Amino acid sequence: MTPTAAPGCEGFLAKLRNAWKQSGSMLCVGLDPDPRRFPLHLRGRTNAILEFCAGVADATAPFACAFKPQIACFASAGAEDQLTGLMEHLRAFHPQIPVVLDAKRGDIGSTAEHYAREAFERYKADAVTVSPYMGGDSINPYLAYAGRGVIILCRTSNPGGADLQALPVGLATARGQVAPPEAAPFAGHCALYEHVAHLAATRWNAGGQIGLVVGATYPGELRRVREIAPDLPLLVPGIGAQGGDIEAAVGAGLDRRGFGMMINSSRAILYVSSGGDYACAAARVAEQTAEAIRRAARRQTGDAHPAGGRR
Amino acid sequence: MTPTAAPGCEGFLAKLRNAWKQSGSMLCVGLDPDPRRFPLHLRGRTNAILEFCAGVADATAPFACAFKPQIACFASAGAEDQLTGLMEHLRAFHPQIPVVLDAKRGDIGSTAEHYAREAFERYKADAVTVSPYMGGDSINPYLAYAGRGVIILCRTSNPGGADLQALPVGLATARGQVAPPEAAPFAGHCALYEHVAHLAATRWNAGGQIGLVVGATYPGELRRVREIAPDLPLLVPGIGAQGGDIEAAVGAGLDRRGFGMMINSSRAILYVSSGGDYACAAARVAEQTAEAIRRAARRQTGDAHPAGGRR
Repeated sequence: MTPTAAPGCEGFLAKLRNAWKQSGSMLCVGLDPDPRRFPLHLRGRTNAILEFCAGVADATAPFACAFKPQIACFASAGAEDQLTGLMEHLRAFHPQIPVVLDAKRGDIGSTAEHYAREAFERYKADAVTVSPYMGGDSINPYLAYAGRGVIILCRTSNPGGADLQALPVGLATARGQVAPPEAAPFAGHCALYEHVAHLAATRWNAGGQIGLVVGATYPGELRRVREIAPDLPLLVPGIGAQGGDIEAAVGAGLDRRGFGMMINSSRAILYVSSGGDYACAAARVAEQTAEAIRRAARRQTGDAHPAGGRR
Repeated sequence: MTPTAAPGCEGFLAKLRNAWKQSGSMLCVGLDPDPRRFPLHLRGRTNAILEFCAGVADATAPFACAFKPQIACFASAGAEDQLTGLMEHLRAFHPQIPVVLDAKRGDIGSTAEHYAREAFERYKADAVTVSPYMGGDSINPYLAYAGRGVIILCRTSNPGGADLQALPVGLATARGQVAPPEAAPFAGHCALYEHVAHLAATRWNAGGQIGLVVGATYPGELRRVREIAPDLPLLVPGIGAQGGDIEAAVGAGLDRRGFGMMINSSRAILYVSSGGDYACAAARVAEQTAEAIRRAARRQTGDAHPAGGRR
């Protein structure tokens, strides 16, 4: 099997840019199915996970620039066939919206090739999330799929993310000294997440396929990542249940074209209603969230914002 | 579902210590099935992956202290049912040998709970490998399963591992200064992997469930990890195909009881023969590898080694 771009498809980044423009939205709808929170009429149904996610996706598609299925939710339920069905559904009915498989994989060599095959051949995702801990050669097997997106964890939305990501780092020299990293804002150190952002924006990104995960819960760090990586698409979790502020996140993360972010919301959209109207209720909140993001972007860019004339 | 220890089972660490003593072996047999390299008589068979892995496990069990199925190999092939079957087979026929599910997961909160459920409830693994990049709170959902093992990536066996893991790190202070980490060998910095080893051996390890992944390809770093974490079990990949030296790895990583390591070999054992004798051929190499590890340990500890009287 030779890694290639998705047959007949443009690359992830082109698809995402087009989705930003066409929808005027930077909302990413996270598909994190939890059967314990499903509407009563779906509980116990054989394909409940697929039906639930497809229902939410169909209803929220007009307000979304991306979908992000969380593979852990399918894996814990042994529902790989339903994930396959969902990915087929998204490709068939929403081909213009890129799908980021949230898997946060990280391994080396032949094992990473297996994970890349899982994401890009088995599930045919447009992009996948990965961990940078094992370094550049652990990311190459994903990049070998030309045009597919590889979204690298940078500064995650959880407080414990700081345990490693906020550590001041230097560069080891051959003489046993410590030199300042390229991303250091002054002579000395930078935080590990800044160094990851720098690697992702430069050395690791030969094919222009890379994006970064940066939590909305840390707008100061989000702003630093945008400075270091002015052109990378950012996947931004942490609004809604985790308490991140839309206004602050948009102010920190917009790119110079006035887009640049996939601001993710999962539970706050998925579980608005546990009645038969769950999809419409999800659409209502998705529309409100997309509009709140758009308003925040307009406040940043004024009339210059490409989505400025909408609504 | 309430996280608990495996029903009727001792914890991972007790099981591993017992396996070290009973087998006198520190060999971990990595089960990384690649159907393209299977014996001819298995190719095309419905359950070829399960048959192949079970065959290798049965033949190598006398020489193994642990089995390590690589979940990526099953995921790329859509073979979750065969992984389930393999785990059932290992529990039924080799209940004394702990099984480490190599998944290298890393995520937060409810998503990490899903991954923990995948590893410990769906597949009923004794231990799982995880990434430290997202910090301590990303590891807690696995630790909530009392007695299960959580093996954290520390210094991986690939050259690119140095991209992040070898970076000199300090600790940020409230006053914007950089303080030396607890694991710093002198006043100043330590490498990121040393800091991870320190966190894993102290703050993160309240329940005594944690182990570390350290590559045999970097014996100097392996020795440092053993100094920082004298009692943690180490999963040591990188001998065989990756070129790590058994003698150097054992010299660097033994604990004070003369064990302390699961030295992994996968491809060098699995694909010795592509004939009908593949399992016996695998057993032969497993026995030789376990014996080479034992000899190296004896050279380190002399008559004091608990496996010294064997063979």
